[in-house]
Amino acid sequence: MSGSGGHRVTAEPPYYAVIFSSVRSSGDDEGYAAAAARMDELAAGMDGFLGVDSAREDIGITVSYWRDLDSIRQWKQQAEHMLAQGEGRRTWYDAYRLRVALVERDYGFSRDGQTEL
Amino acid sequence: MSGSGGHRVTAEPPYYAVIFSSVRSSGDDEGYAAAAARMDELAAGMDGFLGVDSAREDIGITVSYWRDLDSIRQWKQQAEHMLAQGEGRRTWYDAYRLRVALVERDYGFSRDGQTEL
Repeated sequence: MSGSGGHRVTAEPPYYAVIFSSVRSSGDDEGYAAAAARMDELAAGMDGFLGVDSAREDIGITVSYWRDLDSIRQWKQQAEHMLAQGEGRRTWYDAYRLRVALVERDYGFSRDGQTEL
Repeated sequence: MSGSGGHRVTAEPPYYAVIFSSVRSSGDDEGYAAAAARMDELAAGMDGFLGVDSAREDIGITVSYWRDLDSIRQWKQQAEHMLAQGEGRRTWYDAYRLRVALVERDYGFSRDGQTEL
């Protein structure tokens, strides 16, 4: 997924984070980029979706935020997402780790009071 | 902090994640890079530190992993880290958000059984 902070999370804790760290394989950049964009779009339409942040350097980190475990389960089992997960293991990733975590506390800082994360 | 997956977390859940998302200000790249490297080094020496992953594109995401809330509290209050936090608000960041989250579950995939995250 491309680097973005486009979906600001406005929920108050407690809510859930899915922390997805990955090492890309070499190749199929185009297929990967298209699927990543499509997954962003699909996730954003799921019930309980709160937001997502992504960045990739040596490794990629995507953190998506969800209302509860049930909404995470539904996203994991979404049909098109399941196909992408399979292709991820077959083609796009050399390694990944996924962590499901309960956000207990959050706080932020904004220099101009407008840029927010 | 530079992109890295150098500190693999070997702990079993439950443990804690600190998810730090940030937008860099323009400027002082050198001072920022030096401080980020120093903070990585300091954090790695703290009691309860389990690992860290970082990547920056449009935004930066650093996820550090900790044994418990007490080890996070000690890291937050570490003297040199407190100075860096102040400089972060004065100079390095236009915005950030910090989330403290309890990792309940994690699982991974590795193509060759060696590359792990």
